[in-house]
Amino acid sequence: MADLSLEQADIIGRVALERARAGNSQPLTVVVLDAGGHVKLARREDGSGIARFDIAHGKAWGALGMGISSRGLAARAAKMGTFFTALAAVTEGRMVPVPGGVLIRDGGNRIIGAVGISGDTSDVDEACAVAGIEAAGLAADIEER
Amino acid sequence: MADLSLEQADIIGRVALERARAGNSQPLTVVVLDAGGHVKLARREDGSGIARFDIAHGKAWGALGMGISSRGLAARAAKMGTFFTALAAVTEGRMVPVPGGVLIRDGGNRIIGAVGISGDTSDVDEACAVAGIEAAGLAADIEER
Amino acid sequence: MADLSLEQADIIGRVALERARAGNSQPLTVVVLDAGGHVKLARREDGSGIARFDIAHGKAWGALGMGISSRGLAARAAKMGTFFTALAAVTEGRMVPVPGGVLIRDGGNRIIGAVGISGDTSDVDEACAVAGIEAAGLAADIEER
Amino acid sequence: MADLSLEQADIIGRVALERARAGNSQPLTVVVLDAGGHVKLARREDGSGIARFDIAHGKAWGALGMGISSRGLAARAAKMGTFFTALAAVTEGRMVPVPGGVLIRDGGNRIIGAVGISGDTSDVDEACAVAGIEAAGLAADIEER
Repeated sequence: MADLSLEQADIIGRVALERARAGNSQPLTVVVLDAGGHVKLARREDGSGIARFDIAHGKAWGALGMGISSRGLAARAAKMGTFFTALAAVTEGRMVPVPGGVLIRDGGNRIIGAVGISGDTSDVDEACAVAGIEAAGLAADIEER
Repeated sequence: MADLSLEQADIIGRVALERARAGNSQPLTVVVLDAGGHVKLARREDGSGIARFDIAHGKAWGALGMGISSRGLAARAAKMGTFFTALAAVTEGRMVPVPGGVLIRDGGNRIIGAVGISGDTSDVDEACAVAGIEAAGLAADIEER
Repeated sequence: MADLSLEQADIIGRVALERARAGNSQPLTVVVLDAGGHVKLARREDGSGIARFDIAHGKAWGALGMGISSRGLAARAAKMGTFFTALAAVTEGRMVPVPGGVLIRDGGNRIIGAVGISGDTSDVDEACAVAGIEAAGLAADIEER
Repeated sequence: MADLSLEQADIIGRVALERARAGNSQPLTVVVLDAGGHVKLARREDGSGIARFDIAHGKAWGALGMGISSRGLAARAAKMGTFFTALAAVTEGRMVPVPGGVLIRDGGNRIIGAVGISGDTSDVDEACAVAGIEAAGLAADIEER
């Protein structure tokens, strides 16, 4: 029942990008937030675009904001466009409802943070996030609910 | 013909969440605003996401902003998307046009505040807000007009 | 080693304002934030000004932001005016470096949240916050460091 | 004559915090920006406050913004308060004119990025940034000019 540690975040950020290189993906940016939505770790690969930090951050922040993976947010946004436009405004643009934002749960199923990745397709982004979280011995939650 | 009191807001916030627990809803956040759109009371249940305060606030603020429940705003937003995009901008993102923002009226039909709830489906959110308002001996206005 | 619960926040908000009434203070607003700086509870007494929520929020947020009570921030601000002007800007005005923002520590000395109060003199505001935190069985940290 | 690489940024972020631990400093946050002012790397130690990312970012961004270390900015701010208030506004609060923001120069004396650190005294923050930059085989510029 501990908070997300920098040691765990380092593992997530390292393994996520190793997975990206092994899969020969586009250059990625990975952002790891704690449960309060504050940056624990960020790494932007060489060649990853200058908006990628904000996008990765928004995927992770959105997941925490609603307590659901950004894959779940994407599914809802497709049905409730007006609500998500309002959400973008009310959160001052901090939510990006596209797959690649994954909740981090500890052994007690408590949300202790989230990972956001941007740079390749959403599915690739998400797979790298999941790989990082699992390498840190934590549970990756990508459910749509 | 008095303003909304903290005593009334406390009842609203307590009963709304009791109703949520009785109905086994997702963790909610309730925000009660006075007629000027300023926080009188807020309560965020354990496990309710970090964007929930802003969303609940935006539902209540939007209702006061237009003098119509957020259910009514949702109906209009569906027909007037461009107008609501402009509203989001002009209010600096303070309006969330989705059910769950309920106007509070006193015995003289005067608007004395609004309740916003976020966390479960919009219908559940709204039902909990109505329960709280009525428990405080006030009238809940969810009309679409 | 648990997060701040709504049950604890309710006690803090109730006892802080009971203390204010017992001491016949000016109308207060109390805001309780979790460790991530997000609202768990807020209560604004009748007659408490419309800026009081933002001020109380800023005292609590500032304490969490720097990991030091807002009394400590006030002491530093007196010596480092330019830095605090920059802090106000970089945090988008979320820090209010005046006494009345008190860190909440659990039995393991971990910061699990903060209370901000505004409405009377800073010393009265702070005393009410401390009373609430201690009533919840938690430790109030007002050190200047 | 290459851009700052993630490999170099990783070394900076690792060595800066190793230096902090060796010196028993307060928990720090380190942010490494590229020449365009965009995050390459960020690491926030356990217990480092929730405003520390923004502050560290602001030190590094300010250094890049004016092409002078944040130590130099601090010296100027002491003499030109009004100008720095305007700078805070025009940059939307992105500049923090306090030591701890250090320019990174390559072998050709070209600015290729900046490091910002926050958490301990400004002098300690700056010393850790310098240690990290030098460990990466780059030049740390803390001149006041």
